[in-house]
Amino acid sequence: MVERRRLTNDGPLVQELEAQLAAYHGVHHCIALANAGLGLIMLMQIFSGGRQGEVVMPAFTFRGLPHFARWAGQQPRFADIDLNTQTLSPVAVEAAISERTTAILAVCNFNSPGDIDGLAEVAARHDLPLFFDSVYGVGTAYRGRRLGSFGRAEVFSLHATKLINGFEGGYVTTNDAPLARQLRYQRNFCYGAEGDCSADMLIGLNAKLNEPHAAMALLSLARIDETIGANGARFEEYATACAGIPGLRLLGHPVPDGEPRNYSLVVAELAPPWPLDRDLTLALLRAEGLAISAYYSPPLNRDWPDPPAHLPVTEILASRFLQLPAGHLVSRGDIEAIGALLRFLARHGPSIRAALAEERTP
Amino acid sequence: MVERRRLTNDGPLVQELEAQLAAYHGVHHCIALANAGLGLIMLMQIFSGGRQGEVVMPAFTFRGLPHFARWAGQQPRFADIDLNTQTLSPVAVEAAISERTTAILAVCNFNSPGDIDGLAEVAARHDLPLFFDSVYGVGTAYRGRRLGSFGRAEVFSLHATKLINGFEGGYVTTNDAPLARQLRYQRNFCYGAEGDCSADMLIGLNAKLNEPHAAMALLSLARIDETIGANGARFEEYATACAGIPGLRLLGHPVPDGEPRNYSLVVAELAPPWPLDRDLTLALLRAEGLAISAYYSPPLNRDWPDPPAHLPVTEILASRFLQLPAGHLVSRGDIEAIGALLRFLARHGPSIRAALAEERTP
Repeated sequence: MVERRRLTNDGPLVQELEAQLAAYHGVHHCIALANAGLGLIMLMQIFSGGRQGEVVMPAFTFRGLPHFARWAGQQPRFADIDLNTQTLSPVAVEAAISERTTAILAVCNFNSPGDIDGLAEVAARHDLPLFFDSVYGVGTAYRGRRLGSFGRAEVFSLHATKLINGFEGGYVTTNDAPLARQLRYQRNFCYGAEGDCSADMLIGLNAKLNEPHAAMALLSLARIDETIGANGARFEEYATACAGIPGLRLLGHPVPDGEPRNYSLVVAELAPPWPLDRDLTLALLRAEGLAISAYYSPPLNRDWPDPPAHLPVTEILASRFLQLPAGHLVSRGDIEAIGALLRFLARHGPSIRAALAEERTP
Repeated sequence: MVERRRLTNDGPLVQELEAQLAAYHGVHHCIALANAGLGLIMLMQIFSGGRQGEVVMPAFTFRGLPHFARWAGQQPRFADIDLNTQTLSPVAVEAAISERTTAILAVCNFNSPGDIDGLAEVAARHDLPLFFDSVYGVGTAYRGRRLGSFGRAEVFSLHATKLINGFEGGYVTTNDAPLARQLRYQRNFCYGAEGDCSADMLIGLNAKLNEPHAAMALLSLARIDETIGANGARFEEYATACAGIPGLRLLGHPVPDGEPRNYSLVVAELAPPWPLDRDLTLALLRAEGLAISAYYSPPLNRDWPDPPAHLPVTEILASRFLQLPAGHLVSRGDIEAIGALLRFLARHGPSIRAALAEERTP
């Protein structure tokens, strides 16, 4: 990179990364970007054709999504999710579609890509573009086909915390050649676009990925099977450490459909007879020093209340999940200690609750 | 960076870079960003308060600016420039202000920061935020004060082709503490923002700079005086090589106000008695193998014709300038050869024109 004096602006490492990612995802086009969020923004802008409208999306997801819609001149329109996959429900999506809808943004979770066929059917019936935030779906599959070529486009991340680490970065995959061309113009200030960008309602941005990111991502991509394998082994250790704890279930265990998973997250679902509410459980585990958080909670409609959304499944699930420590810095000993802590809470939850209530009584 | 396992998300190298850049620019706050364009977008969004309106800007500048306005929900409103500084004319800016105006975006060129006091007076009279695209003004000064603390904010670039090379990247400087805080929230998805981002009309983005960029930019910043010195020496070589060529003048030579310049660009102005029009001159020099381009031409109002803008000075200047090869890969021999070529064109222009006209006659 240094010897070539090519540091950015669609350099050879970026092109190599795009070719390898396209091959990995089994898709014709990969457009590397400075980050995944910019990819979501660009797609929403292109799909809107410059019209101000609404993008249908889940509220049980990453908090950036409604912000990204706003940059593209769109309002988020939240639709409810499925209880089992925690992804958009096609029925709920169809109910959320109106004349203002410009696109459907579905999210593929780490444990399930969701009902892609059901969503595609709704999108086709309403002649709307369907695309995916597949950031947590890298390496997973739907009906035997690896994610990357579904819908009009899919968006992935190269953030340092993701499976393919490019420091920061992201990319869009698509089989739609005109869309790929538009994204390439758009990520580089519309330079080289034929005709008048403003007449085409194509708005340019600097969303270029550069060579150091591509170099790092190429190294990381070369090891992805190894990374997923190690994640899977840790996941099995979690499953062993948590086996038989009443009221606690690890999301995606066992894998219900036999499809490959990436085990990039470890999320525990708490439900009766788990003796404590989720937020108290979280506070107690944090007090023990665990780097732990709620999973997609609170749901996004709390911060974006207008128009009001009726999301009963989202509301239930947003209070149920704990995101446990994952990744190669977590040792078998850590996992066993976490399992023992969770087992302790399950057993002593009622007396902890009673002691806390007593303490609060004046 | 690798030993610390801190690759991004406001790491210690980014914080060090921000501190050093704030000191360099003599300003309280520096917010490092993934690129300068995102900084301009974020500022326009914040200044708009969520209102759709217009940002007054020059048409004689980088072609990304009107695109950036659109991402922020704004329309570009072009104002004419001053003949001598090629920067926004305060009189023209005042004429372009309307009820729809949300901000004034002035551009500081490499050869002049423009009439900052005049613009500030207009902005104050209309109670509008004034901010600067100072990408080409790094290291230059206005009335004895280095750029970085003028207006509400200034935006700089860390692109590989700029004076401070961070591969890609950019930053905003400001003395406005609440604005700095908003930008920090905004660049990181609004994480940590108190209250409701959507009620504050603050839209979150991923615009983070990461550690490898900061490392590179720190090395480059440490050498900025040396870089500017070498640029200045090459500029003097250009001045010598072009001395006395009729109808050709190097922009910013001699420096009219005695302020420090960065010599990051070498731009030649062609005017009578120069014998050829600018585009033909460009074509002839390219045919000789020169990596050369027009400077801010065509003006941006050609691509953004609505509403029509009356920009007589812009139209004159957009057909006058040649951007000559600059930077440390350009040798003294290159510069002498370029000077000789320009001198040849000045002498033989009339006969070249005649020969071309003859060739075109059927």
